[in-house]
Amino acid sequence: MIVVLETGTSEKQVEEIIRVLHDHGFDVHRSTGVQHTVLGAIGVHPEFDHRQIELLDGVSEVVRVTEPFKIASRAFKREGSVFDIGGVKIGGPEVIVIAGPCSVETEEQVFTIAKHVKDSGAKILRGGAFKPRTSPYSFQGLGEQGLKLLRAAADENHLKVITEVMDKSQIDLIEKYADILQIGARNMQNYTFLKDLGKSSKPVMLKRGLAATIEEWLMSAEYILSGGNEQVILCERGIRTFETATRNTMDISAIPVIKKKSHLPIIADPSHGVGIRDKVIPMARASVAAGADGIMIEVHHDPGRALSDGAQSLYPDQFTQMMKEVRLIAQAINRSIA
Amino acid sequence: MIVVLETGTSEKQVEEIIRVLHDHGFDVHRSTGVQHTVLGAIGVHPEFDHRQIELLDGVSEVVRVTEPFKIASRAFKREGSVFDIGGVKIGGPEVIVIAGPCSVETEEQVFTIAKHVKDSGAKILRGGAFKPRTSPYSFQGLGEQGLKLLRAAADENHLKVITEVMDKSQIDLIEKYADILQIGARNMQNYTFLKDLGKSSKPVMLKRGLAATIEEWLMSAEYILSGGNEQVILCERGIRTFETATRNTMDISAIPVIKKKSHLPIIADPSHGVGIRDKVIPMARASVAAGADGIMIEVHHDPGRALSDGAQSLYPDQFTQMMKEVRLIAQAINRSIA
Amino acid sequence: MIVVLETGTSEKQVEEIIRVLHDHGFDVHRSTGVQHTVLGAIGVHPEFDHRQIELLDGVSEVVRVTEPFKIASRAFKREGSVFDIGGVKIGGPEVIVIAGPCSVETEEQVFTIAKHVKDSGAKILRGGAFKPRTSPYSFQGLGEQGLKLLRAAADENHLKVITEVMDKSQIDLIEKYADILQIGARNMQNYTFLKDLGKSSKPVMLKRGLAATIEEWLMSAEYILSGGNEQVILCERGIRTFETATRNTMDISAIPVIKKKSHLPIIADPSHGVGIRDKVIPMARASVAAGADGIMIEVHHDPGRALSDGAQSLYPDQFTQMMKEVRLIAQAINRSIA
Amino acid sequence: MIVVLETGTSEKQVEEIIRVLHDHGFDVHRSTGVQHTVLGAIGVHPEFDHRQIELLDGVSEVVRVTEPFKIASRAFKREGSVFDIGGVKIGGPEVIVIAGPCSVETEEQVFTIAKHVKDSGAKILRGGAFKPRTSPYSFQGLGEQGLKLLRAAADENHLKVITEVMDKSQIDLIEKYADILQIGARNMQNYTFLKDLGKSSKPVMLKRGLAATIEEWLMSAEYILSGGNEQVILCERGIRTFETATRNTMDISAIPVIKKKSHLPIIADPSHGVGIRDKVIPMARASVAAGADGIMIEVHHDPGRALSDGAQSLYPDQFTQMMKEVRLIAQAINRSIA
Repeated sequence: MIVVLETGTSEKQVEEIIRVLHDHGFDVHRSTGVQHTVLGAIGVHPEFDHRQIELLDGVSEVVRVTEPFKIASRAFKREGSVFDIGGVKIGGPEVIVIAGPCSVETEEQVFTIAKHVKDSGAKILRGGAFKPRTSPYSFQGLGEQGLKLLRAAADENHLKVITEVMDKSQIDLIEKYADILQIGARNMQNYTFLKDLGKSSKPVMLKRGLAATIEEWLMSAEYILSGGNEQVILCERGIRTFETATRNTMDISAIPVIKKKSHLPIIADPSHGVGIRDKVIPMARASVAAGADGIMIEVHHDPGRALSDGAQSLYPDQFTQMMKEVRLIAQAINRSIA
Repeated sequence: MIVVLETGTSEKQVEEIIRVLHDHGFDVHRSTGVQHTVLGAIGVHPEFDHRQIELLDGVSEVVRVTEPFKIASRAFKREGSVFDIGGVKIGGPEVIVIAGPCSVETEEQVFTIAKHVKDSGAKILRGGAFKPRTSPYSFQGLGEQGLKLLRAAADENHLKVITEVMDKSQIDLIEKYADILQIGARNMQNYTFLKDLGKSSKPVMLKRGLAATIEEWLMSAEYILSGGNEQVILCERGIRTFETATRNTMDISAIPVIKKKSHLPIIADPSHGVGIRDKVIPMARASVAAGADGIMIEVHHDPGRALSDGAQSLYPDQFTQMMKEVRLIAQAINRSIA
Repeated sequence: MIVVLETGTSEKQVEEIIRVLHDHGFDVHRSTGVQHTVLGAIGVHPEFDHRQIELLDGVSEVVRVTEPFKIASRAFKREGSVFDIGGVKIGGPEVIVIAGPCSVETEEQVFTIAKHVKDSGAKILRGGAFKPRTSPYSFQGLGEQGLKLLRAAADENHLKVITEVMDKSQIDLIEKYADILQIGARNMQNYTFLKDLGKSSKPVMLKRGLAATIEEWLMSAEYILSGGNEQVILCERGIRTFETATRNTMDISAIPVIKKKSHLPIIADPSHGVGIRDKVIPMARASVAAGADGIMIEVHHDPGRALSDGAQSLYPDQFTQMMKEVRLIAQAINRSIA
Repeated sequence: MIVVLETGTSEKQVEEIIRVLHDHGFDVHRSTGVQHTVLGAIGVHPEFDHRQIELLDGVSEVVRVTEPFKIASRAFKREGSVFDIGGVKIGGPEVIVIAGPCSVETEEQVFTIAKHVKDSGAKILRGGAFKPRTSPYSFQGLGEQGLKLLRAAADENHLKVITEVMDKSQIDLIEKYADILQIGARNMQNYTFLKDLGKSSKPVMLKRGLAATIEEWLMSAEYILSGGNEQVILCERGIRTFETATRNTMDISAIPVIKKKSHLPIIADPSHGVGIRDKVIPMARASVAAGADGIMIEVHHDPGRALSDGAQSLYPDQFTQMMKEVRLIAQAINRSIA
């Protein structure tokens, strides 16, 4: 922590500030400049609230130096993490495509879609069984029956399964059916839940909260990692901004930022990122071009009748076309898509 | 729902759009103007995803007409709701002051603070026993022991108790000690949890999410109300914007907006809203001036040693001074503070 | 500037970083901690782009220490500035009310409104003669004829005049009629224009840009101040956020923040801040309660027929009622309104 | 304009609302539903402030139906506009690369960079002669001398020239040297200036304002187009959001949104969009992948000594590598880069 003092702070004030820092267990290193005196406070207190110092008389500014996350940081692990999920490697040279319906609706629906996305090159099947909906009056998912259908459709097509877990009570159940546990944007800072996920043996895909900074997102990953679960995959799905022409504003630049700050793999979700079908393909292409380790795409064979998010689901033919384009883009940057 | 068609849409396209609306169960009313044909689609489908129509050929724009919340709306209940919590009336002419430490730390701490805030005019004691912290390495609260101390300090000083519930597993326990259940900003869209709260017999104070629009906030209130719990109190605590000079940007205008759209009472939390002590008092005054039904203030007798949020806690003397000012401001708009 | 190095940076890298800092004219002070080496770079280079250092190998973070504005800062001038504009003192204990129509439309209109606002306690008359409009097809103002009417109405009622200057070509003209030059939010970072204003002998009221941080706003004030014009008044008028229930989100907390960082007076403009009549009064009250040195309010005797912004203009009776309330609120915090 | 009335509005209120609409020159079409009465108000009043109606008793919501821009809209011109600038076609199948230094500094600098970017495939040379700087104490550009150097370097390398015009007084001068006039983000809503640009015979590249919605951006384009200048090129350069890990948040999704709403070409500026060198290349690739008609890139042969924005300028070798990648990406979507 660096403590910058105001111009004209008296020697007595400086000593008092140093005393408080010592009380909090910091070693203090003083450096007196022409305009400013600066104190370097050294200690291992990741939880220290630096505003405590900011309010002392004579303090102009306090700057936190150490990043608050550790295990999630690139400094902790220099090479990028690669998670092998039954042969599907996330974080390696291959860009992994996750696809499927928003919600599991019927056996016919999920099997039809699973076969199609597999044939076009997807490796993982997505689909919701428990749906968090803004309105209490909307379709809330098929529950365990949906999980069974999802697993069966994936197995028949040699796909892995990812599905959302909404709270602790669902973890045990969903672990039985899924290969990856998806954590929604609204749960990104549900800390008691993150601790529970730290005890799971399954990989967790953590979506970025709508108003979460990249640093906060990595702090939430840290909650899971520090609980013992090393397999955390990040997922960018759009942030909230003033622009309303798209549902959210997809922060494509988060992809290279994460790649620099962390060793964890990052997936992009353009379906939620823009929220309307005709913009999904350009944003999927942009995500791969920016360096994402994977993309997650909603596909429906009859989106006009989908029970949720039909408007952002691709038609099967659109998905096939998109796959051709992203495959070429991956090659342009020395990566591959199956 | 109003469906505005593009200029130059063919008669065949119009008929197809009307057919789709009929399929979804809407009555359609057509109105042909010079520039635009407009369709009024009438039906009772609060859960309908209007993007389904937006994507049809020939559609320029779709406008949802009915607000998605019902029980929370001012149209549902014209006069403002007043909740009587053991004699403390929230939503009436009196502006209620909630005060106390961020976290319950020790017996001495909570009794000292409780006595002071009571003497200055507070009616409800706040204090956290389970703390949601951004860092997994920070102080996480005293748990049930904290609840006991909080209840005892409140009882000795004839105060009511409010404290945060972080997930379903804590509801039963906290209902034993608290008069009002506080739901944090990060849980505002944790829908399974909101449903559980709909079954509680205790009033719920629902904080606004950091990136939640006022409409989404009222939708979350609707989840609780539609579950059968009629006592929902809203709490504005700052939203996330590009400005970093304050921890959050307190949206004071949400106070008059809520007063127009809803019958539910609204409390302001300037301590979290600005996040630094010397701005709390002006924002508390502004909240009361704007028409809040109450304010919630963090107070600590030794903030430099507080285990959480000391930097935004008022000293007891500051709290007393603030009470004098907000009392006069309440009177200026024909309200009162005890 | 503080340069924090990455853990594990080699001695050679450290020396190279120090060499670059020396090349840029900085004195460097090195401090080696357990986890981090930190360099203090001391020099007087307000224009230095610290990203230059951020990109060097081995650098983890660069922190600018000195605030980029000087003359605008509270450190430069400890007591608050008070500007005496023909007897009206802005920045002193009295809270100044500026009121009038959005646009000057007719002689009858501006005289009617001027008399009313004067009778209720306003000290300065506002009104636009040149209107910046989002649409090229909207009413663009009366031009010099509007200025003449505004001046005449003010003089008859012993009011001062404030009106907007949109570009350099209008400065000379408007200086003839106005006591204060108003600079709109969209011009806040029009730097060539700010330099021109630095040469004016008239006080300038600088509105905050829709997306401007408080620091950028003070930097823009610095442009005017550094040009020789010491009379800069700031005006908060709402920032752009994700919330659409109000036209903008009025950042009331900017008032106490500015009061701490700068000696310049600050005015609040709730009419533009919320953009709809029924929220203007609560926000005017909140602004005064938070410590604003003045408020600016749009008033129209027939808002339904106003040529611009009628929807956010108060009826004369509402203005009178508002004045009663803000007068009491000013007294509650030891200030006054005439 | 669609006027939705509140549930339970009396017949008398409905008639009064209709009367006001008639007074404002609208034809009114009434449609009475089970829950709501809806009025369709038809007229040609692009400048009408719909808040006037929103405030009437009994009105629940007012919805503007017609988009406020006309000439800029895709409805006005179905096929995309292509501007031929001395043989360089912007808006056609070729993706145009604009490159050069942030500021023109010396003859050697601009000639060195111009040659390099030409050799790698750029078609247009960029470089600032008049620099808008946040700080009044920063380097402000070489002025006309800079323009001369830029023109000469471009001519020697068969490149076109783009440079920024900061205000009206510079238009005549810059038209002598530049092929395209660049308008900065901070001037996007400087309406008197936009009108002046409407009279220029040179193409104008209009950068998106930091807080401008896509609709407002197109309204600003409309100002120029309605003045008679048909050659407007849009440029996305990042918007302001809560995220501070990047200088701005580049809104890549604006590219497909603009392509749907407007016929105007759109360029992406990743250098300003992310503001730091190591993220520029991924964002350039993402922009091309999303469908941009061009990209603008800052390049410097010695960025560590650049007088402005060195930190976001690519080294020549990085630029060459980027060109290889974006060329392949353009081909992946059936476009080309020379």
